[in-house]
Amino acid sequence: MMEFRIEHDSLGEVKVPKDALFGPQTQRSLHNFNIGRTMPMEVIYALLKIKKAVAFVNHNNKTLDDEKYIAINEAIDKLIAGDYKDAFPLHVYQTGSGTQTNMNVNEVVANLANKLHPDAHVHPNDHVNQSQSSNDTFPTAMMMAAYQATNSVIKTVENLISSFDKKQNEFASIIKIGRTHLQDATPITVGQEISGWKSTLEHDVVTLNAIKQSLLELPIGGTAVGTGLNTKNGFDQDVVDTINHNEKTNYKVAENKFHGLADHSEITSVHGIFKTLASDLIKIGNDIRFLSSGPRAGYNELSIPSNEPGSSIMPGKVNPTQIEALTMVSAKVFGNDATITFANSQGNFEMNVYKPIIIDSFLESTELLNESIKSFTEKLVDGLTVNVDRINELLNNSLMLVTALSPHIGYEKSAKIAQWAEQNNTTLKESAQHFDIDEADFNKWVNVSNMTHPNK
Amino acid sequence: MMEFRIEHDSLGEVKVPKDALFGPQTQRSLHNFNIGRTMPMEVIYALLKIKKAVAFVNHNNKTLDDEKYIAINEAIDKLIAGDYKDAFPLHVYQTGSGTQTNMNVNEVVANLANKLHPDAHVHPNDHVNQSQSSNDTFPTAMMMAAYQATNSVIKTVENLISSFDKKQNEFASIIKIGRTHLQDATPITVGQEISGWKSTLEHDVVTLNAIKQSLLELPIGGTAVGTGLNTKNGFDQDVVDTINHNEKTNYKVAENKFHGLADHSEITSVHGIFKTLASDLIKIGNDIRFLSSGPRAGYNELSIPSNEPGSSIMPGKVNPTQIEALTMVSAKVFGNDATITFANSQGNFEMNVYKPIIIDSFLESTELLNESIKSFTEKLVDGLTVNVDRINELLNNSLMLVTALSPHIGYEKSAKIAQWAEQNNTTLKESAQHFDIDEADFNKWVNVSNMTHPNK
Amino acid sequence: MMEFRIEHDSLGEVKVPKDALFGPQTQRSLHNFNIGRTMPMEVIYALLKIKKAVAFVNHNNKTLDDEKYIAINEAIDKLIAGDYKDAFPLHVYQTGSGTQTNMNVNEVVANLANKLHPDAHVHPNDHVNQSQSSNDTFPTAMMMAAYQATNSVIKTVENLISSFDKKQNEFASIIKIGRTHLQDATPITVGQEISGWKSTLEHDVVTLNAIKQSLLELPIGGTAVGTGLNTKNGFDQDVVDTINHNEKTNYKVAENKFHGLADHSEITSVHGIFKTLASDLIKIGNDIRFLSSGPRAGYNELSIPSNEPGSSIMPGKVNPTQIEALTMVSAKVFGNDATITFANSQGNFEMNVYKPIIIDSFLESTELLNESIKSFTEKLVDGLTVNVDRINELLNNSLMLVTALSPHIGYEKSAKIAQWAEQNNTTLKESAQHFDIDEADFNKWVNVSNMTHPNK
Amino acid sequence: MMEFRIEHDSLGEVKVPKDALFGPQTQRSLHNFNIGRTMPMEVIYALLKIKKAVAFVNHNNKTLDDEKYIAINEAIDKLIAGDYKDAFPLHVYQTGSGTQTNMNVNEVVANLANKLHPDAHVHPNDHVNQSQSSNDTFPTAMMMAAYQATNSVIKTVENLISSFDKKQNEFASIIKIGRTHLQDATPITVGQEISGWKSTLEHDVVTLNAIKQSLLELPIGGTAVGTGLNTKNGFDQDVVDTINHNEKTNYKVAENKFHGLADHSEITSVHGIFKTLASDLIKIGNDIRFLSSGPRAGYNELSIPSNEPGSSIMPGKVNPTQIEALTMVSAKVFGNDATITFANSQGNFEMNVYKPIIIDSFLESTELLNESIKSFTEKLVDGLTVNVDRINELLNNSLMLVTALSPHIGYEKSAKIAQWAEQNNTTLKESAQHFDIDEADFNKWVNVSNMTHPNK
Repeated sequence: MMEFRIEHDSLGEVKVPKDALFGPQTQRSLHNFNIGRTMPMEVIYALLKIKKAVAFVNHNNKTLDDEKYIAINEAIDKLIAGDYKDAFPLHVYQTGSGTQTNMNVNEVVANLANKLHPDAHVHPNDHVNQSQSSNDTFPTAMMMAAYQATNSVIKTVENLISSFDKKQNEFASIIKIGRTHLQDATPITVGQEISGWKSTLEHDVVTLNAIKQSLLELPIGGTAVGTGLNTKNGFDQDVVDTINHNEKTNYKVAENKFHGLADHSEITSVHGIFKTLASDLIKIGNDIRFLSSGPRAGYNELSIPSNEPGSSIMPGKVNPTQIEALTMVSAKVFGNDATITFANSQGNFEMNVYKPIIIDSFLESTELLNESIKSFTEKLVDGLTVNVDRINELLNNSLMLVTALSPHIGYEKSAKIAQWAEQNNTTLKESAQHFDIDEADFNKWVNVSNMTHPNK
Repeated sequence: MMEFRIEHDSLGEVKVPKDALFGPQTQRSLHNFNIGRTMPMEVIYALLKIKKAVAFVNHNNKTLDDEKYIAINEAIDKLIAGDYKDAFPLHVYQTGSGTQTNMNVNEVVANLANKLHPDAHVHPNDHVNQSQSSNDTFPTAMMMAAYQATNSVIKTVENLISSFDKKQNEFASIIKIGRTHLQDATPITVGQEISGWKSTLEHDVVTLNAIKQSLLELPIGGTAVGTGLNTKNGFDQDVVDTINHNEKTNYKVAENKFHGLADHSEITSVHGIFKTLASDLIKIGNDIRFLSSGPRAGYNELSIPSNEPGSSIMPGKVNPTQIEALTMVSAKVFGNDATITFANSQGNFEMNVYKPIIIDSFLESTELLNESIKSFTEKLVDGLTVNVDRINELLNNSLMLVTALSPHIGYEKSAKIAQWAEQNNTTLKESAQHFDIDEADFNKWVNVSNMTHPNK
Repeated sequence: MMEFRIEHDSLGEVKVPKDALFGPQTQRSLHNFNIGRTMPMEVIYALLKIKKAVAFVNHNNKTLDDEKYIAINEAIDKLIAGDYKDAFPLHVYQTGSGTQTNMNVNEVVANLANKLHPDAHVHPNDHVNQSQSSNDTFPTAMMMAAYQATNSVIKTVENLISSFDKKQNEFASIIKIGRTHLQDATPITVGQEISGWKSTLEHDVVTLNAIKQSLLELPIGGTAVGTGLNTKNGFDQDVVDTINHNEKTNYKVAENKFHGLADHSEITSVHGIFKTLASDLIKIGNDIRFLSSGPRAGYNELSIPSNEPGSSIMPGKVNPTQIEALTMVSAKVFGNDATITFANSQGNFEMNVYKPIIIDSFLESTELLNESIKSFTEKLVDGLTVNVDRINELLNNSLMLVTALSPHIGYEKSAKIAQWAEQNNTTLKESAQHFDIDEADFNKWVNVSNMTHPNK
Repeated sequence: MMEFRIEHDSLGEVKVPKDALFGPQTQRSLHNFNIGRTMPMEVIYALLKIKKAVAFVNHNNKTLDDEKYIAINEAIDKLIAGDYKDAFPLHVYQTGSGTQTNMNVNEVVANLANKLHPDAHVHPNDHVNQSQSSNDTFPTAMMMAAYQATNSVIKTVENLISSFDKKQNEFASIIKIGRTHLQDATPITVGQEISGWKSTLEHDVVTLNAIKQSLLELPIGGTAVGTGLNTKNGFDQDVVDTINHNEKTNYKVAENKFHGLADHSEITSVHGIFKTLASDLIKIGNDIRFLSSGPRAGYNELSIPSNEPGSSIMPGKVNPTQIEALTMVSAKVFGNDATITFANSQGNFEMNVYKPIIIDSFLESTELLNESIKSFTEKLVDGLTVNVDRINELLNNSLMLVTALSPHIGYEKSAKIAQWAEQNNTTLKESAQHFDIDEADFNKWVNVSNMTHPNK
């Protein structure tokens, strides 16, 4: 049976589990909001880092005494280093300002500080939350968590780019049929096809790097409505400097804190690029799974690694399961983008009260992208191979190569050769020979390699 | 240190945790897919119910012997009744057919059956999965889970409707200013305003009840591609009848199993109505939070319960946190709808391989809607009160009442009275008296009650 | 040079083109809102039908004299029958209640009525708009336009279903390889595959028919805020009865007019089903374009009609352009659904001010769906043919047929045969003969027809 | 009656309107695709500019003779300068590569060139389309049109920023109540509130400027599949240099043309920022319309210009119609983003066949944003005024000011004063006097100006 301790707040008594590090406000939130998953720990860690920096600044400013500062600082260090997930049980679906999570952190830091230094008498509001409001700490934590997560996705995509780069080089000289409108088109090399996938991802990385900068602006110091009420001039810059010193980062004070509290357009825009990335991953994933479709009744130009048993009796059947996971993740990223965009549109006056769902959806996307792209890279792309015989068969069967004959024997005769090949279900070469074209000439003229680049 | 047992599959040895009920295919999936949250237990339970019914039918058809049937049946009953969450550790992001979860269930049922009846020699594929394929069991489980979840949302919304119904009656005779374009308009009663919210939800329930029927069609018996290969004629109907007998349900055999495996339009359409419901909840939630905005500088016509401390020093400040959670849930439902719709569009040939994300997003929405609507009903709507003084003040201040004067004193004089009131920042009544209208006449003519319904 | 006449409204003088049927309020809207496309004529026609019915009822109620009624009625009949598009030049992006379009209609009816009957002295507000408000006429027109458009889409889809039905019968006995995860799977008939597409569309039609009923509720009679202020008891029913008599329809008075003015969940839900339909069309379209991909390096099981020249030199290249148009339309329907759902969530109090964009996006979707499905049906599906030789080649090449050998020669030997075929890039039959299976036995055992249905 | 001329293509005879500048391929497309709106002229103009530059390069490369070059160049100049909209009647919903529009342009240029220079014998394919494919010209035109349109939106938003900047300065010293969770909060200035809106838009402009660069990469020279088949080495750079010379632009050759033909992630990402901008405009628009709600029963802190008659009898009722149009546009931008993102995900192999809907949706968004933001700026923001009396009334009524008393008289007494004020529905000042606080002290202590910034 669970034992409880009695705590008080302005609405009366609250029963809190006896050994919980959290306090009455956390308990009330648990009671009022039992909805959905819990707040991501990335947000908790960011709040702890903010409160560590603020305590340092307040101590410098003489508004926090030595003993309390030491206790708070030590408690936060322990909470960041250790495994305290149970102390932060609140759900994403709570008050839209994230106040309850901010108070959860205040309560846990104060309780742990007081355990470590019983004489410090640290109070969650008066000391841990000093010079702050949920209204500025929570959006500051959102920006920090979003920036770190964005960097991690960039790194994951760069690893996929490297993997494609190796494959591009490996298959640089294998010539295959191109396809437009799903119809046979002129030839390209397998390396060229892969270079297209790689280039798409490279463009997304360039875009992410260009706009992730916008996440560096922290609205800390705005307090309740953005004015900085109850802070000292310069407090915001001091806190950001301290965070940067502690974390080796380069955050900046937000240009405008009214914007910073009421609007989350930077997070919305960066997630918009994740949405683009997701759409590109679907395109790439679809290409690979169709090119490896078969083994007999599909394109079958590529082979993907067999990570789990396909059919026990039928050899060669390998389901593209990594791609299926990747494209399902992409579908979820599309959904999260709809969620975030809607949420960002719904701020009112000095506050947007969809903060938890914005940062939770953002971090869900980054986590899913990281895990699925990593898995796709290592368990599929790294093991991609080419079925050269099949590729040659399809290329040689193609009637599109007729375009290479035309300059030598004229348009009209070329068209006849192609038509005869089509009607007789044979290759261009056989048809050409039927029309008395010398095989050597054919081989010289139909130089597929020369069809894969501009004329010298 | 974790101990392992060695199992084998067609790709070789697999190390499985010694006491795990699951087997090598589950273990391989865990190794290959460490992405996102785990498959909802509603899907697992539905699969177990399907396999229980299939075992019964196969036993009847003499393709499953007594001992194996008893073992399988007993194992499934235990798994449904008990707490075996650890036995089903697979993630949503896996193979897009849900095959790995189907195999997870097969392995767990077989292992538990063999523990209970060591001589039964139950095999996951040959016996638990007999006459089935992931390709038909998984979409059947999706339909069953979706249907039950839809019913639960309907019930939750009906409770909210009841709560609004009580409030509508309670406040039926309180007359207030109406608002269109956010501008003051002609009067309505508080009861009428609430009746609008109630009617919106009632319409959504009617729609949900109309289309939830489409979820009753189960594609079981389609096996690998929808043809029913390797089943006996009538197998599908027998299985559905058995499920209906066991579960007191009224499922039907799917009209067309090719559709049932390759397309999930029914689930997509029903979730589309949840999206409508979410949009309606946002409208209603916004109305209530604006009408209770203040206490001094807002509309302040309504008061909502104080579930957690607002400002410790400022009385009357109650943040609409339940609405904030509800509207964040609604934003997530919008996102899930985008996910599901995209996923449904991406089937190819005989299969749609976005099955896990479709059913997971659907069940995430229903769970969030259930929890947040219930919380909103009990912790906010049930405790809604009306600030009659404030409502009267706003009503009496309104210049829109001038429309009631016009039939008695003419359009021109009425307009003058309204303009004078506007210019002198006074009430219509005072202005009317300034223009020598008798107060008794004014009170008789400006009968706001008569403005809230058609003329008798 | 354009000539003008001077008209007046409460803000002063307005210059209106000399011969325009519209008046000053339309002119002001044109001046203030020069954004996007013009209001769909379906909305204009619905407003005209409403005003015709209202005039009839008002005349019966003796609030509109004979001469004015005759003039209004005659004017409306002319406007509905003739080509008066220039008289309705207002844009979708205007006031969110549609007031300006309602006034545009009032002005045009009044001006034309006065031209036809100069002594009638019809006034746009006092007579044409009598007993109405934009707030109830516009949403009534939305419902009427949406209902008619929904019926037209249902009819168009039914024609496509008929076309698929013919093809299903035509190709009922052609057996082909099935595909799951894009990988070769067990056989199905072409007819079965088409039946899946047909069934998907049939399910969408059932759903549309089930929920289109919700569009029959008309909020006419709600006037300014839903109360019915300034109407006579029974006015709403009389108007709806008159519309039904005139139009041979079965509309009903809205159950709750506060809901009817402030919330458009019915239109949102019905469009949600169009979104499902669009996702299904993408699935079907993708299937057909992949199955007709090639001619040499694709699946090439189907052939689609050649509606425009493909390559001038290469025979057999037919781009699936009708499908490209159809899937682009589907993408637009997805977008319109996002627009409508957002818009529906943003009502406030007694009004939703996104009415024009809701109905415009709805009608854009229905128009695009009608045109593209019709074109897809007539120019592609009706002309679909099957490449039987290719289908047989892929089927006979398939290793999946090995599952049919197993009951006769055992699992182990079957697997060996399949592996040898895979390694030697040959057919199962040749491999079976290599393992001393008699050709006659092989042909008897590997009965692909029996693999396309349950066992008798 | 329309007269026709007979033209021929590889499928046979085509009847083309006698005087049409377009030819048989355009006519076939009109016949096959009668769906939705016509291709935006921005795309046509971009194609003309590309073909002008290509003709120049081909002439330099001696593959186009003098006479033909002069004829083509002159024809294109005329088409760009004049009003030839009727010559380009094709619909957006056509082949997904935009081939039919590319051919439409080829036909029109050739026909006009031959009219101007009958001896030039310009052929649409051989001369106007020389060294090109629809597959590279159309995406090049998309990038050019998208880049220009993005710049125009940036300029429009900058004008809105300027307008807000003026208002920020004008109202810099007016202090008002802040609002968080829609509840009364601590004071801010009107200037600060406006600065938040301005800052949001400034951040969006910074982001747009950062990523619009990605639109400068032109895939011209990729021809059919991205390889540059049938072009000369250096052709791509020459064409881009020529475009830059002609248009005073700074486009670049695409880094990878396979990406450039098969994927439109740059356009998708830039539109993602428009989606963010739209969400921000909704937030700003909602703030303004709520702050100007009333006149009596709303916030009524701001007044917006009266652009059209509100109620004819009730003064002061001004509907926020410009905001209604702006937010409807924003809803459409949300929809277009869903359309574009889906479309971008659906490329296959060497081609994405959703090109027309991608660029059409992009340009629809930019056009709507330009028009509605311009209108909102000029017809609403420029005329925004502040109701100082009302603002002061709400501020002085506020109980939140109690936080300023606390440092002087203690928390406990402050709370009592606030509670007494709340219970007696009076102001803090009156309550303070009731508790014997000197009015002069109150005025000194409750210095709302000091509450709008950090402590010095």
